[in-house]
Amino acid sequence: MTGYTKPKAVVLLSGGLDSTTVLAETAARGYQLYALTVAYGQRHAAEIAAAKRVARAFAVVEHRIAQASLDAFGGSALTDAALAVPEDGSTRTTIPITYVPARNTVLLALALAWAEVVGATDLFIGANAVDYSGYPDCRPPFLAAFEHLANVATKAGVEGARYRVHAPLLYLSKAEIIRRGVALGVDYGLTVSCYQADAEGRACGRCDSCRLRAAGFAAAGVPDPTHYQTG
Amino acid sequence: MTGYTKPKAVVLLSGGLDSTTVLAETAARGYQLYALTVAYGQRHAAEIAAAKRVARAFAVVEHRIAQASLDAFGGSALTDAALAVPEDGSTRTTIPITYVPARNTVLLALALAWAEVVGATDLFIGANAVDYSGYPDCRPPFLAAFEHLANVATKAGVEGARYRVHAPLLYLSKAEIIRRGVALGVDYGLTVSCYQADAEGRACGRCDSCRLRAAGFAAAGVPDPTHYQTG
Repeated sequence: MTGYTKPKAVVLLSGGLDSTTVLAETAARGYQLYALTVAYGQRHAAEIAAAKRVARAFAVVEHRIAQASLDAFGGSALTDAALAVPEDGSTRTTIPITYVPARNTVLLALALAWAEVVGATDLFIGANAVDYSGYPDCRPPFLAAFEHLANVATKAGVEGARYRVHAPLLYLSKAEIIRRGVALGVDYGLTVSCYQADAEGRACGRCDSCRLRAAGFAAAGVPDPTHYQTG
Repeated sequence: MTGYTKPKAVVLLSGGLDSTTVLAETAARGYQLYALTVAYGQRHAAEIAAAKRVARAFAVVEHRIAQASLDAFGGSALTDAALAVPEDGSTRTTIPITYVPARNTVLLALALAWAEVVGATDLFIGANAVDYSGYPDCRPPFLAAFEHLANVATKAGVEGARYRVHAPLLYLSKAEIIRRGVALGVDYGLTVSCYQADAEGRACGRCDSCRLRAAGFAAAGVPDPTHYQTG
């Protein structure tokens, strides 16, 4: 009897709603899960604790926490304590202050490094071009450019491996993401999306990420399992 | 009188011979210097002390030390304590064990992040396709792919800035690099290239990096200012 070995995938897991859904989707597609959480000095460090809970719930093969000091550079409300996280829920026409310069480039670079070491060629990321249309590194040209880069940047790539960057949530609304996750058995009570969650991972309920998440549960017709700081 | 502002460049500075020469070259081309050293868990941490000396010598505008835990992944003799650094000086036909998976992708990603924050669009890296021909991320297709990525990955790029990745040493031999640096006034006694330098930054004289460096000084006809552990 010939054994079938499931292919390996490196999944970027922040511990938030989107990346947790990606992890569930990657499992459903039959991959062995290598979950990578990058601690990049973001304010919402409670997400890292959430990532650990989620990785445990999905029985991943390995969960690594890598460091990348994007906070050393500043320039974003998510990594620079001097900039306020917006709570106005305003509709924007420009790239929001929560954009972290080159964040997804750094995240995918680290995912690629680990993928080459473990022999994975599939990278999964929760990029979304609907809610995060203002972020250049959530758009298809970026994902295509990184996929090309991966194939020329690595020993495996130049020796014939073909890396692929998967963004299964790219064109889904928040409600569609939630419905997909619920269908796959995700417990969203484990996840943290808030930009300014407290040490216990409880959400503020006011920041843009909280608003988007709450609206998503409402639109999906799914009870919101988020742990809030008040109420 | 209209003031002329020099353009800003982010220069990846390991503290070794090549990147120090790149810093001198970038200064000679009239850029304001933003030196970035990435501590990626490499064994040769003495290079970071060297990078600080070099940054000071060139009076850079800023020198940042960023963290990126490539050692969390292993897979290279430079980041994995379980793998021996080669000292055999053998000629190789395959990619050497000192290749660090996706290293230059991670380094340039961090350089790009900082560049976007400070408003620089020129990134300088000491990639070399002569001595490091075995490293895919020292080859022109990689550099071109990253340049393209930078322009679609960033807010500045999609808003019209044009990032450029410069590798001024790409086609130079070690001797040519040294001659260029000497002409620019570089004091190579400040630099550390050894893969297993001691805490004082003194070189082993045996690893491939030491052999390459020593041969370079000999070929350039320049006295070798390297501080060795013995002799």
